[in-house]
Amino acid sequence: MNVIFGVDVGGTNIKFGKFKLNGPDYLVEKFLVETAVDKFGGNSVDMICDQIYDEVTKHLNGDNLIGVGVGIPGPVVNGVVLGAQNIKWGVVDLKVELRKRFGNVDIEVLNDANAATLGEWYFGAGEKLENAILITLGTGVGGGIIVNNHLIEGATGSCGEIGHIKIFPYNGRKCSCGLEGCLEQYASATGIVKTAKIQMIERGMPVDDELTCKEIFDRAKDGDDFYLEVVDKSAYFLATGLASICNTLNPNVIMIGGGVSKSGDFFTARVRKIFREMAFFSVKDTKIVVATLANDAGIYGNFAKVKLELND
Amino acid sequence: MNVIFGVDVGGTNIKFGKFKLNGPDYLVEKFLVETAVDKFGGNSVDMICDQIYDEVTKHLNGDNLIGVGVGIPGPVVNGVVLGAQNIKWGVVDLKVELRKRFGNVDIEVLNDANAATLGEWYFGAGEKLENAILITLGTGVGGGIIVNNHLIEGATGSCGEIGHIKIFPYNGRKCSCGLEGCLEQYASATGIVKTAKIQMIERGMPVDDELTCKEIFDRAKDGDDFYLEVVDKSAYFLATGLASICNTLNPNVIMIGGGVSKSGDFFTARVRKIFREMAFFSVKDTKIVVATLANDAGIYGNFAKVKLELND
Repeated sequence: MNVIFGVDVGGTNIKFGKFKLNGPDYLVEKFLVETAVDKFGGNSVDMICDQIYDEVTKHLNGDNLIGVGVGIPGPVVNGVVLGAQNIKWGVVDLKVELRKRFGNVDIEVLNDANAATLGEWYFGAGEKLENAILITLGTGVGGGIIVNNHLIEGATGSCGEIGHIKIFPYNGRKCSCGLEGCLEQYASATGIVKTAKIQMIERGMPVDDELTCKEIFDRAKDGDDFYLEVVDKSAYFLATGLASICNTLNPNVIMIGGGVSKSGDFFTARVRKIFREMAFFSVKDTKIVVATLANDAGIYGNFAKVKLELND
Repeated sequence: MNVIFGVDVGGTNIKFGKFKLNGPDYLVEKFLVETAVDKFGGNSVDMICDQIYDEVTKHLNGDNLIGVGVGIPGPVVNGVVLGAQNIKWGVVDLKVELRKRFGNVDIEVLNDANAATLGEWYFGAGEKLENAILITLGTGVGGGIIVNNHLIEGATGSCGEIGHIKIFPYNGRKCSCGLEGCLEQYASATGIVKTAKIQMIERGMPVDDELTCKEIFDRAKDGDDFYLEVVDKSAYFLATGLASICNTLNPNVIMIGGGVSKSGDFFTARVRKIFREMAFFSVKDTKIVVATLANDAGIYGNFAKVKLELND
């Protein structure tokens, strides 16, 4: 059987998916390994490439490998990694490194958020609509953009850094990127918790230092007014950012992923309602849906990249 | 000689450019006529198509027509006009209408702001860089987007409505589109005048009702502190919007056009400086330049569209 591996490299783990070329059940097997760490605490390019080669080879089980797609946590343009802080890489022409090991199979390299976007678009909530955007709400806010059925990377691989859209022109919350008022500070899990804590202080309540985003959503779902207000404020902040994106790019669909989206349509329905009030009239009907692939979006996307290249 | 006409349809005038296929001096001749108005004050599709056909034919002077590109003030997707309020059109498959008259020459149809973007990108300040954005600052704020060397139109032809990016999440100025806090209310000529008038009130000065944007820039250039502050505030507002766009799209270059850009690099240099402080680190170096084609961007862009289609 011909197979393609989708590989999602992170600072802690490397996730692998073994896929066959025809669906609907493309995924044959998935597994993960700890990301190799060298003795200085860094991850050298050679170590990770060896690891990918070894694991893929080990899981081939007599199948015929025709391609490997790899996602990296850093900017990538046309397959070249421009740097990846989490795994301490500088500029790496990863295709060349992987071809040294894999020889003559198709090798593709994407940024991890872009890979997740491609995966959600092709196999998940995006329904392969012509223009689609993924926004992931986790510890931070990330995303990726599909235009005319193609993933776009931008001039320096930074397309889709929508967590750093400035939604407050003045007096915004300080962001870890050094800027202020970034969407990430309001719509990430961390940001939503901050909104709740500020609201506690404003109401003269003791601040619950242990508060989690999940707790906020759970209590809001139970009908607690205080937490419902936090959720609605957060939906308002997110809708502000999404409206700006849609007024610029006019996509068919926005897919919301990441930990925050686990609350299902509870949050997304609120975002959708406020979005309609904030978006330019001609983009009001943009679909806003919950992403469906969760942590598998990356492996699916790296598989999709190889599959799409082979079909071209 | 083989020629292509670029036609820019507006509510008041229709601008025509007659172009030859090779440069650097592509433009043979340009002229404009008043937009035909029917007896009910509307502009019927037939009247405007006849007008385009008549004017092009009249100005052929024995040359061989190989294509006509037309820009329309309304959303266009794949050559179909989805509506154009200024000239009272609904949905019009304009290529079909024009082919009835012109027969077997290449016909292309674009939204007017998108055509201007293509023109500035191909023949003006954009230097054909892979990813480019035009923002026009006039009475309103409009724009268009080039990604991977292609103009993008979006799901409903509303790509580039960057005048309606929300730069104030709360208490923003009311926009004519019905929303609040739109970039247009701060960075258009009208918006800059509003900023000056508000500042006059804040300082307890009499409000100059006759104040124009040109006057603001002229006085600021003369070193007047009050007006320099208005210009800097306006540059800050614009940079806020541009940073959001660049964090999303990571273009190589932003071209600033429209009446406000007539102040030359005086305004743009300020925008550039503030932009560097507000943009995500990886997009800080986006080029920000003054557009060069002014009111001719549209005819050049419609010409470019035909030229690019013929080369494909």
